[in-house]
Amino acid sequence: MASTQPAVAVIDDALRDDMLRERLLIATGVPGVYGLGAAFEDTLLRIDRLIGRFGADDHAELVRFPPILNRRHFAQSGYLASFPHLAGTVHSFEGTDRVHSELLRAVAQGQDWSAAFPATDVVLTPAACYPVYPLLAGRLPASGRLFDVMSYCFRHEPSERAERMQMFRMREFVRAADPETVMAWRESWLPKVSQIVEALQLDTRADVASDPFFGRGGVLLAESQRDQRLKIEVLAPVSSDECSTAIISLNYHQDHFGERFAIETAHGAVAHTSCVGFGLERMTLAVFRRHGLDRAQWTDAVREALDL
Amino acid sequence: MASTQPAVAVIDDALRDDMLRERLLIATGVPGVYGLGAAFEDTLLRIDRLIGRFGADDHAELVRFPPILNRRHFAQSGYLASFPHLAGTVHSFEGTDRVHSELLRAVAQGQDWSAAFPATDVVLTPAACYPVYPLLAGRLPASGRLFDVMSYCFRHEPSERAERMQMFRMREFVRAADPETVMAWRESWLPKVSQIVEALQLDTRADVASDPFFGRGGVLLAESQRDQRLKIEVLAPVSSDECSTAIISLNYHQDHFGERFAIETAHGAVAHTSCVGFGLERMTLAVFRRHGLDRAQWTDAVREALDL
Repeated sequence: MASTQPAVAVIDDALRDDMLRERLLIATGVPGVYGLGAAFEDTLLRIDRLIGRFGADDHAELVRFPPILNRRHFAQSGYLASFPHLAGTVHSFEGTDRVHSELLRAVAQGQDWSAAFPATDVVLTPAACYPVYPLLAGRLPASGRLFDVMSYCFRHEPSERAERMQMFRMREFVRAADPETVMAWRESWLPKVSQIVEALQLDTRADVASDPFFGRGGVLLAESQRDQRLKIEVLAPVSSDECSTAIISLNYHQDHFGERFAIETAHGAVAHTSCVGFGLERMTLAVFRRHGLDRAQWTDAVREALDL
Repeated sequence: MASTQPAVAVIDDALRDDMLRERLLIATGVPGVYGLGAAFEDTLLRIDRLIGRFGADDHAELVRFPPILNRRHFAQSGYLASFPHLAGTVHSFEGTDRVHSELLRAVAQGQDWSAAFPATDVVLTPAACYPVYPLLAGRLPASGRLFDVMSYCFRHEPSERAERMQMFRMREFVRAADPETVMAWRESWLPKVSQIVEALQLDTRADVASDPFFGRGGVLLAESQRDQRLKIEVLAPVSSDECSTAIISLNYHQDHFGERFAIETAHGAVAHTSCVGFGLERMTLAVFRRHGLDRAQWTDAVREALDL
C-alpha cells in the first residue's frame, strides 16, 4: 500500500507540469498560486458564460463583490467555528516612521516582518455567496430572493495539486426563501448541472458529500451533513483518474444563515438558504484534462458549447 | 474657507448615494467595499474590452493572476519601503482544538480574535503588474517583453468616497526592455489613452503626478518622481467636479524593478520597466457621472464604443 501515495503524486504532476510547460499555468513560487495563460483564462470565461446561460431562466439578481468581506459579517457567519483552518484575514501596517524603520530592518534581515500589521475590517471571501446573506437581513418578499454571484475565494490549503488553489473563482446562484421553495429550487438545478457537464463532455459522478470541518468535533458535523444529504457534489477527474475532485456543489444550509443574519420569510419564519456553486478553475482544469491541452483538437460539440 | 470641506463632502455623497439607490453600488458596511450591480459590472467589463482593443496591436502576452502575491516577492519589490500604509497581508489560523476554543470565545465576546492568525506566504496584490516582475528574472529577449494583466488590487485606505475602493480591478500593460524601447513604448500609449477617454466622451486632463509615498521621506521621493516626469495621470471628475481623480496612469519605473528582480536586457544591462494602468471601477464611475445612471440615455457614440 505504501506505493499508492507516490503513484498518485506522479499522475498529479503530469497534468500540472504539462500545463506549466504550455504556459496554461504559470508558477509563482507559492504552492496553489498560479498565473493563468490566455487559453486557460479564455476557456474559464467561456465556461462561466455557459453556466450563465443555464442560470438565465431563473432571472437571478446579478451582483459582483470584490474578494473581501466585512470582518464582522464573517465572524457572524459561523465560518470560524467550522473552518478556521481555511480562513484568511487581511492585516495592514499601522505605525510611525520609527515603526516603519523597524519593519524595513526586519525585511532586510529576512526576519518576520508582520509585527506591525494588525487585523483590518476585512477578511478574504471564503465562498462567493458569503457577501449575500448580510444583505438579506429582514423580511424577504413572498417569492424569496435569488442572487447570481461570482468572486475570487480564498482557502488556506497550500498544495502542489493544481486543483487545490489558494484563490480561485466561484460562480454561484444563491436562493433564500421558505424551506419548500428552497429545496425545490435546489432540485431544479440537478438536471441543469447534468446538462452543463454533458455539454462539456466530462466524465462526472454526483455524490453526497460533506465539508472539511475542523477538529475533533468536525467528524460528527460531517456525518450529520451526509446523513441529511445537505451537500451534493459533482466530481470529475482533474489531477488523477483515480481520485476525482468536486467541481460543482449544491448545498442546502437549512436555517444556518437565516438564523445568523436574521433573514425572515414573508410569513416571519426563519428563512432557509441554498446555493449552487461552480468552481471555475477546477471545471477548466477538468476540461483540459478530458479533452487535451490543444483547444483546436476539442470535439465540435464542446467547442460549440463554449462558442469556440 | 471652512465651508469648502463639507461642500465637497456633500457632492461626494450625491453620486454614491444615487448609485446606491439605483443598486449600481451595494453597501457592505465597510467604507470602500461595495457590491456592484449588473449595469455597473457590465459597463466595467465593456470598458475593459474597449481598452483591450486599443492594446491589441502590441500583441502583449495575456496572463491573469489571482489577487494574491508571493510574500517574498512583495518584500523584494520595495513596496514596503514606499507604501507600507497601503499594503494588505494575508493571515491564517494556526492552532489546536484548544486554541480554536479560545478563538471562538473571543468571537462570542466581541473581542479581537486575530491572536492565532500568523502571516501566510501571500499578501494582497497592490497593483496588477506586481506578479509580472519576478517572472522576468534573468535575460530578456532582444525585443524585451510585454504583458497584459488584469487583477483585483488592494489598498488599505478606507474612505467614504466611491472612487477610493479598498479592492478594485486594474487592467495593465507592462513593458520590460532597454530604457529607449521602454520610454518609446510609454510614449506610444499617450495617443491611445487619449482615444480611449475620447471614445468614452470623458472630460479629462493629463498631469505629471506622484505616488502617495509614506512618511517624512516620502515628500522628497514624490518631488523627485514629479521632477523626472516618471508618472503621468489622466484625471476625470468622479465624486466631485472640483476635485478630479486619477483613472489611468502611465508609469516609468526606470531600473527599480529590474534591479530588485535581476531583470537584464539582451545585452546584460539592468532592464527598465514601464506600465500603463487603467482603474476599471474608477473609469466606470467616471462614465456614470459624466453620462448619467441610465445607460439607455447615453450618447450613441459612447454606446457604440461600449458595444451597447
